[in-house]
Amino acid sequence: MGSAPFSYLTHLECGRCGRRYDSGVPQGLCGCGSPLLARYDLPAVAAGLDRAEFSSRVPSLWRYHELLPVQAPGMVVTLGEGMTPLVPLPRLAAGFGVAHLAMKDEGLLPTGTFKARGAAVGVSRARELGIRRIAMPTNGNAGAAWATYAARAGMEALIVMPVDAPEITRAECAIAGARLYLVDGLIGDAGALTAGAVASQGYTDVSTLREPYRLEGKKTMGLELFEQLGWRVPDVILYPTGGGVGLIGIYKALLEGQALGWLGAKMPRLVAVQATGCAPIVRAWEDGASESRAWQNASTIAFGITVPKPLGDFLILDAVRKTGGCAVAVDDEQTLAAQSRLAAAEGAFICPEGAACFAAAEQLRKDTWISEDDEVVVLNTGTGVKYPQTVRVHAPVIPTGSVLPEA
Amino acid sequence: MGSAPFSYLTHLECGRCGRRYDSGVPQGLCGCGSPLLARYDLPAVAAGLDRAEFSSRVPSLWRYHELLPVQAPGMVVTLGEGMTPLVPLPRLAAGFGVAHLAMKDEGLLPTGTFKARGAAVGVSRARELGIRRIAMPTNGNAGAAWATYAARAGMEALIVMPVDAPEITRAECAIAGARLYLVDGLIGDAGALTAGAVASQGYTDVSTLREPYRLEGKKTMGLELFEQLGWRVPDVILYPTGGGVGLIGIYKALLEGQALGWLGAKMPRLVAVQATGCAPIVRAWEDGASESRAWQNASTIAFGITVPKPLGDFLILDAVRKTGGCAVAVDDEQTLAAQSRLAAAEGAFICPEGAACFAAAEQLRKDTWISEDDEVVVLNTGTGVKYPQTVRVHAPVIPTGSVLPEA
Repeated sequence: MGSAPFSYLTHLECGRCGRRYDSGVPQGLCGCGSPLLARYDLPAVAAGLDRAEFSSRVPSLWRYHELLPVQAPGMVVTLGEGMTPLVPLPRLAAGFGVAHLAMKDEGLLPTGTFKARGAAVGVSRARELGIRRIAMPTNGNAGAAWATYAARAGMEALIVMPVDAPEITRAECAIAGARLYLVDGLIGDAGALTAGAVASQGYTDVSTLREPYRLEGKKTMGLELFEQLGWRVPDVILYPTGGGVGLIGIYKALLEGQALGWLGAKMPRLVAVQATGCAPIVRAWEDGASESRAWQNASTIAFGITVPKPLGDFLILDAVRKTGGCAVAVDDEQTLAAQSRLAAAEGAFICPEGAACFAAAEQLRKDTWISEDDEVVVLNTGTGVKYPQTVRVHAPVIPTGSVLPEA
Repeated sequence: MGSAPFSYLTHLECGRCGRRYDSGVPQGLCGCGSPLLARYDLPAVAAGLDRAEFSSRVPSLWRYHELLPVQAPGMVVTLGEGMTPLVPLPRLAAGFGVAHLAMKDEGLLPTGTFKARGAAVGVSRARELGIRRIAMPTNGNAGAAWATYAARAGMEALIVMPVDAPEITRAECAIAGARLYLVDGLIGDAGALTAGAVASQGYTDVSTLREPYRLEGKKTMGLELFEQLGWRVPDVILYPTGGGVGLIGIYKALLEGQALGWLGAKMPRLVAVQATGCAPIVRAWEDGASESRAWQNASTIAFGITVPKPLGDFLILDAVRKTGGCAVAVDDEQTLAAQSRLAAAEGAFICPEGAACFAAAEQLRKDTWISEDDEVVVLNTGTGVKYPQTVRVHAPVIPTGSVLPEA
């Protein structure tokens, strides 16, 4: 009798047409143009693994290795990412008028954002499949994360980001040794440049959902959340939605958890939060459409969710609909106000994308879409320290040897 | 029979003269001018608590609550801090010629630095003791952390920092709602301004080691490290030393772990790392002195350790001597080179203070003070994303619709 497998990955499957693909070799999109999803031998996982075992493992996302694609433990590329805290926010809950409000704080990951999850799993699996050179367009944080993990894996990385991406992400790419280019446009323009280099310079395209394993890393946000709640789900989960991989990943974790018998049938209502300056998913949701149309002149301070036409739009909309969720947009003023309020009331300095979700939660509570009895969880996708320009600072300079003014 | 106490704190004791103080009321320095240390009923802890129990608790520093000063669980002010990863660095180890090199990455804490530990425990205990207004001088990160936790506790914070402190820490203080002032000088000048406000404006002074509980938070770096190593110690621990609370805390964790029977008699050699531009501990160490003399014209890119005359100098020097350690200074060029090398080789973007320790480790290996068989642990005290100016970025802007150049 052999020992239990490290991973129960079996194959890849198209998220739209269902066609199967071999997971043992690098794969991109399905022939139909849609993302591929990793599939596991869930009955074998259910039979061989007690979910109670996770709590005795190291507190990183790799505790869920049976449900991750990496086959050999030695292929894992890690900086200790995962098991971010679920932080109760009692003052804000009282202010909003909800029973329970908590934030899963993804700012406490390497590189300071949730992008580390996708990068850790994506880079690990790419290394295992023999890939040595990766390329991607990014709104900044994903590029920083992939450059970081690529460096740790000894891989080459080519990163292209808009000039408006958070400036600190340039430094992260540069110090990790990535090839970095800026483009005076949006992520789609960066994607076009990357595609050219993929075609002519031998890089593997690891753009959002163009390889199947980033999603598996994002899925661990859901697994962790459910474990942290004692293997149950909250009533509402709000997620800032650009490419939407996090939301798709949480939904995938939910379905896998249900299939494994670890979770009951209750669905948390998934809320895709966007900015009024770039809200293709919200428009599609309101139109009852199954896909989005490209958003023109996209612009928001929540730069990470400036994705005018996400590749996985149909998966996002499906997750929102199947869980009884919704899609909602907030404006930049609401976002900045929520960011300030959270820091002053609860001591958490979060990114604008995360702040947008708090603004959305407040709005949905006012609209009674969220009820006073609901247990609400917000995914904060990154730390505020990567966004210095979102804060107005009043800091008088006092001469040495003088005295401070009265308050 | 009552349930086990949440904390086994018994009293405070002067670190120099041994005088006892009541821990049930706010205390500052001993009458002799030295810091007070928290003492616990260690025999009762040893009798009532199995160290194996920690691994089943939530992965935060509060898993060690028996050895922390907060008496009531409801007084804990937390953002989920602690259980930072211990990251192996095999490439750098090979480059240095040591058997084992690992980094405990304190960048993965709220506010992005190890200062969150002291702030979480210090603010919690201050709240429990009825303190409502705190004031402190800071080199930036401690002030950001205390402002953050004070906001979470609903306390007022007054923060004074040098104009040269990392700029992002201003935003952190401001958004948390702290009163923030800058001083065109060093931390001692900030301290003088703070002292005036403490005397005249009703704030409690929470400067480094002037209240006894920040140290207890820092101590958890040691407890976590020892737990992560399976309750044993490495051969060498390097720590960037400004005020030195982290190093004193790790030493305190070591002594408590030994007294509890959780650790054997082996001492890890503690290394106090400073910058050549501000090295009062190194000078005292080389002079065989038990205290430091104030360093003139202090200046280094590792701004967090720009402390010309640390209050706890005698405790730092004692910890270094009792463990067979040493004190060593590196220059800014070495620090920046180490920072780049770590990011490119291992994918970790760390702060200059942490980088100084890697430069020191390399130097000590060359000097054979560290041997090839040694297991070496570096405490990286913060994330590099708070230090954008330490990285030189090369990022050409490419026009939309054109092609990327060849590599």
